[in-house]
Amino acid sequence: MSDQLLSQLSAEAGRLAGLGFMACTAGNVSVLLERDPLVAAMSPSGVDKGQLKPADFIRIGVDAKPLPPDARKPSDEALLHMRIYQATGCQAVCHGHLPHATALSMGSGNELVSRGIEMQKAFAGTTTHVGERRIPIVENSQDMEELAGFVIAARQSAVPAVIVRGHGVYAWGASIREAGRHLETVEWLARTLWLQRVAGLTPPA
Amino acid sequence: MSDQLLSQLSAEAGRLAGLGFMACTAGNVSVLLERDPLVAAMSPSGVDKGQLKPADFIRIGVDAKPLPPDARKPSDEALLHMRIYQATGCQAVCHGHLPHATALSMGSGNELVSRGIEMQKAFAGTTTHVGERRIPIVENSQDMEELAGFVIAARQSAVPAVIVRGHGVYAWGASIREAGRHLETVEWLARTLWLQRVAGLTPPA
Amino acid sequence: MSDQLLSQLSAEAGRLAGLGFMACTAGNVSVLLERDPLVAAMSPSGVDKGQLKPADFIRIGVDAKPLPPDARKPSDEALLHMRIYQATGCQAVCHGHLPHATALSMGSGNELVSRGIEMQKAFAGTTTHVGERRIPIVENSQDMEELAGFVIAARQSAVPAVIVRGHGVYAWGASIREAGRHLETVEWLARTLWLQRVAGLTPPA
Amino acid sequence: MSDQLLSQLSAEAGRLAGLGFMACTAGNVSVLLERDPLVAAMSPSGVDKGQLKPADFIRIGVDAKPLPPDARKPSDEALLHMRIYQATGCQAVCHGHLPHATALSMGSGNELVSRGIEMQKAFAGTTTHVGERRIPIVENSQDMEELAGFVIAARQSAVPAVIVRGHGVYAWGASIREAGRHLETVEWLARTLWLQRVAGLTPPA
Repeated sequence: MSDQLLSQLSAEAGRLAGLGFMACTAGNVSVLLERDPLVAAMSPSGVDKGQLKPADFIRIGVDAKPLPPDARKPSDEALLHMRIYQATGCQAVCHGHLPHATALSMGSGNELVSRGIEMQKAFAGTTTHVGERRIPIVENSQDMEELAGFVIAARQSAVPAVIVRGHGVYAWGASIREAGRHLETVEWLARTLWLQRVAGLTPPA
Repeated sequence: MSDQLLSQLSAEAGRLAGLGFMACTAGNVSVLLERDPLVAAMSPSGVDKGQLKPADFIRIGVDAKPLPPDARKPSDEALLHMRIYQATGCQAVCHGHLPHATALSMGSGNELVSRGIEMQKAFAGTTTHVGERRIPIVENSQDMEELAGFVIAARQSAVPAVIVRGHGVYAWGASIREAGRHLETVEWLARTLWLQRVAGLTPPA
Repeated sequence: MSDQLLSQLSAEAGRLAGLGFMACTAGNVSVLLERDPLVAAMSPSGVDKGQLKPADFIRIGVDAKPLPPDARKPSDEALLHMRIYQATGCQAVCHGHLPHATALSMGSGNELVSRGIEMQKAFAGTTTHVGERRIPIVENSQDMEELAGFVIAARQSAVPAVIVRGHGVYAWGASIREAGRHLETVEWLARTLWLQRVAGLTPPA
Repeated sequence: MSDQLLSQLSAEAGRLAGLGFMACTAGNVSVLLERDPLVAAMSPSGVDKGQLKPADFIRIGVDAKPLPPDARKPSDEALLHMRIYQATGCQAVCHGHLPHATALSMGSGNELVSRGIEMQKAFAGTTTHVGERRIPIVENSQDMEELAGFVIAARQSAVPAVIVRGHGVYAWGASIREAGRHLETVEWLARTLWLQRVAGLTPPA
């Protein structure tokens, strides 16, 4: 298990916690260690994500169970992480309970649309503010295979993140830092949309 | 008196202060030391809760008075803590002046209703976002026996916290960390409800 | 000049800066050193208030000029501090640019009214949340004698602070810590009022 | 290359990042090193601006290319910085993605107008709150020469900053600290305007 990757993962988890994305021991992060067969290092269940040490991460397989002899409990949402690794080919996944993205997801729509905002470029592969980025919103479920199905079906190449209604956001990337940046980007855009909406402002057509 | 518990209590008070819940020297925390007869360690009155040391906590009995020879003044709301220990069987109590929970409590209702929010699971014993959690709101009083009566009467098993109108929130738990998490959870849910309300959004029916 | 008072003053200035009250090098703080004749230690002009050292404070007289041989420039608003010492008999004065108090002051009224909020008790001498506290709002002026006249005329015993419209808040107290707490209290109450107002909530009559 | 200037620049970048202006690796800062021919030290592309060290800054010429043998990549917006140095005679430029300024820029207007706010005095050269300060809003562009044209055409002496619609703010000054303070001032004023607008308050006529 790469010590450097785990140091990066704990640092990024701490950074995301500092942004307020991991309140009440919520949120989780993982990094891919091996692709075939799938092995990832996953944050543990029910602890504060601001102070994780490299040794706290749990090595899990494609079924999201800890690799023996490790018997510690990874995050309940580990299976969803594994499905995202399978579907997207990404290297890291970050999940947080983002205040504005969660609040805006409580409407009836199935996407959050950002239009003409420079910060859209913080999504890897987006090179201009022109046009729009549609961040999918899917229904929440306590069944991880079902939730994974919703997330995988709704994902798209242009936005490496999916909002789960009333829950939070899953974001992924080609590196730990990129996955974390994508999570941060969704909340930045959601906050901007909320600030506009509450002020009665809409972007120029 | 357990040094370890008091270290945990000062750390949690500092964490809650860092979240902005203990502004203007408000807020207080305690931990149960003995159940029969009731003895708790209580934060002192009128000081900043962000820098408390283990030695700052005051050992008090069921009448909320310091155990002799200690003559220091515990928080004015110590008696309410003791009544919560008696009524709920909890191990720790945290009280904070939570901005969004306090603002929303200024309406005429007697509860704050969160529906379909994943973070409801941060209340111990809640295992799904499906359905709702009703956080009671009771009237404020400067008479601690009266206020305790309101809180005890309104408490419920599903939500280990009560909002006092225009005042703040009392939360409890099976450990210091759980009591603090419950306090944080109320404000997280209240902020989400406020963000939704101000944006004209209501959760799907 | 008391080293202890100046250490407390720099610590309190740093605390208030950490709360976001001293943005853009705004805000200032002082402590009374002698009452007859009036001598105070005043923060310097045009510097960041988050990192002040005790030696940075400037000893000034009743005319707000530095006492020779010191020729450093105290805050432009030093004269207003001295008038507050004369009128109120207080021991310390804190001034900050408080976001919500400033925004709410841009209406046409001459006071901000907080009613039924427990945090009103953070004003020294207020012992209950019952009833209201009226925080005066006065017009701004670049003429310090004129501004001092407005502040002194509007002050009242129940609220040791005055809001200057579109500018910020002056608060005072019997100690450095109390003056800083009063400043923090005004912003806490103003934020609560703003959160209520924007959510369409008014306190129960 | 002056070590002291680069230390100041990294400190100011860290301060601005701490204010939340440099989210998602956005934002950039520079300082002028030589005026004839134009040489500036520029922050690197695509990194977090909160932890920059003096050696991270890249020496660039008037064409915004790194001076050989340095081949590192400066910020994409380096050319805009150089055009601002040419047009304004300033010594430093700071750019950030300011939440409230960006949200308010999404209306149809071409300026943000602050009226009667004391904090207007944080713009160098403004000595009174009386009257108004009009902060220009220009359209965004991924073509740096075009964007520079917009910014230079809209700039004015009274406000050393320009808002780029849906993007963020460029501010400049006679020193690193002044440029950073001007950036902070725009967001402070924008937040105040947003808080007023959302509360249904307008400044007295």
